[in-house]
Amino acid sequence: MGKIAIIIADMFEDVEYIKPAEAFKVKGHELIHVGLKKGGKVKGKKQGTEVQIDNSVKEVSVEDFDALFIPGGYSPDKLRGDPEAVKFVKEFMNSGKPVLSICHAPQILITAQVLKGRKVTGWKSVVQDIKNAGAEYVDKSVVEDGNLVSSRHPGDLPLFIEAALKKLKKE
Amino acid sequence: MGKIAIIIADMFEDVEYIKPAEAFKVKGHELIHVGLKKGGKVKGKKQGTEVQIDNSVKEVSVEDFDALFIPGGYSPDKLRGDPEAVKFVKEFMNSGKPVLSICHAPQILITAQVLKGRKVTGWKSVVQDIKNAGAEYVDKSVVEDGNLVSSRHPGDLPLFIEAALKKLKKE
Repeated sequence: MGKIAIIIADMFEDVEYIKPAEAFKVKGHELIHVGLKKGGKVKGKKQGTEVQIDNSVKEVSVEDFDALFIPGGYSPDKLRGDPEAVKFVKEFMNSGKPVLSICHAPQILITAQVLKGRKVTGWKSVVQDIKNAGAEYVDKSVVEDGNLVSSRHPGDLPLFIEAALKKLKKE
Repeated sequence: MGKIAIIIADMFEDVEYIKPAEAFKVKGHELIHVGLKKGGKVKGKKQGTEVQIDNSVKEVSVEDFDALFIPGGYSPDKLRGDPEAVKFVKEFMNSGKPVLSICHAPQILITAQVLKGRKVTGWKSVVQDIKNAGAEYVDKSVVEDGNLVSSRHPGDLPLFIEAALKKLKKE
């Protein structure tokens, strides 16, 4: 079983964190919450779910993990403003290890400039940003392209989790 | 004095609405709050400022106004998911009437595909999106390019308001 980095900041979409995290744990994966401030707590935007940050992005390295999960909501907007977070995500994408993206998560992939030529989906508000980044936007519940698994919104969660678990199994 | 459409949705950055709105009113401009639902109330993300929506974007036309103001926060993210809101903003930009943009406001300008070849500034998280949209990102307190006046964040408000009032005076 693998070690999954969950990169997360304030105002994440609660259910987009909770449901995949539960499913990954049930299958025996270890979850490490990576954020802007070690020991800090971040809160979900709708239910106020609290998540403790295990490690700051400055202290971690792609080599420490087997996969990266980026929940949606406004968390990716906060993370993409931090150069260390952007660098971590960029290195993860370039490593070829699985990157699991849902909802607004493509925003930080765009700032990391790793979407050119890739097939990806995401929340409707970021569609034009995805296209402008040189990616092919695909309007489907789950889009898989190499190491990248992406979904649009909470309604896609069952299929997103299924595809993510399959991808993690292959590693 | 002119009629200013303020396009606004939930989770706007309170101060980026409050301060310019006050300054515009003091100078005798009329403010019309345009949103996704007429009569609805929208709330600011930090202070919970309540704003009543005077008209839905479906019912208004660029001809009704002299200028458009787009406050920041997560309001532009919510608006850009609505095709009528995007159409209204696109028509406004194409009309040549003043468009006042701060913080995350370029997001809806990007979805409206009106930034190509324009000089613009905005919040640090949307810099790559601005560049990918074919615009020239300028890291200054206020950037003026034709009818478009843009600023980066609440710290720019005094200069943003000054530039906006000057632009409104010329109309």
